[in-house]
Order: sequence, then structure tokens, then C-alpha cells
Amino acid sequence: MKLNTDILILFGNKVKTLRKEKGISQEELAFRSDLHRTYIGMIERAEKNITLKNIEKIANALEISILDLFK
Amino acid sequence: MKLNTDILILFGNKVKTLRKEKGISQEELAFRSDLHRTYIGMIERAEKNITLKNIEKIANALEISILDLFK
Repeated sequence: MKLNTDILILFGNKVKTLRKEKGISQEELAFRSDLHRTYIGMIERAEKNITLKNIEKIANALEISILDLFK
Repeated sequence: MKLNTDILILFGNKVKTLRKEKGISQEELAFRSDLHRTYIGMIERAEKNITLKNIEKIANALEISILDLFK
């Protein structure tokens, strides 16, 4: 419940939207991206300031480009 | 000299290219983005795994969108 700045909220919402479009759970996204499920939850709720390497992991797991995460 | 994965190298090169296109120094970019000059150097050399909030700061300092940093 700390960060929650605009960019983190936008990003978290985008991840959540794209994940749901793909019909996968947080658990499945976590598994595919080799990140922890609680970390995925924190990203979606804008509670973590994600790093570029993890942004890439999530893009790969969603089978999209990093660009798509910022559109 | 630790990380240097592909995505960090691509990102660092992009920042450097766009910064030079704008004709500004690392010092000036650091000032504009409220980040340290040595940190800007580390980002450009792919020695730091930058966070999303700092990606936004750099985009703002370069007067571009985050999207432009990943094109």
C-alpha cells in the first residue's frame, strides 16, 4: 500500500487487463514469468515499483511486446 | 558491470541516443530527471535494472512518452 503513483497504477491495470484477456490467472502468469504470485498481485495493485527486467518477463509471459504494455 | 542483459542494453542505448539527439549531457538529463548523474551513466551502460518510476522520470526529462523509449 505504499507507492501507487499514476504510472504504477496504469501499468498494473494494463497487466491485469491483458492477463484477463488471455484468460489466465495470477498463478499462471507467475508461473510463466518465473515471478512469485504475490509479486504479480502487488504489481497489479501498484504496490511495487517494477524493474525493467521484470517488465520484460511479464511481457514475454503474456506473449506481447514491452511496447504493448505501455499503449 | 553486473547485469547487462539484452533489454537493459537496448534501453540504455535508447536513452543515450535520444539524449544525444536532444543535445543534452548526462549531467543535464540527471538534473532534469532528478536522478544522479552516475545513475544516468549506469543506465546508459546497462549496469542498473531501472525501475518503472525512474523510466517515467527519464521519459519526462527527455520530453517523450514512455512508449518512445521502447520503440
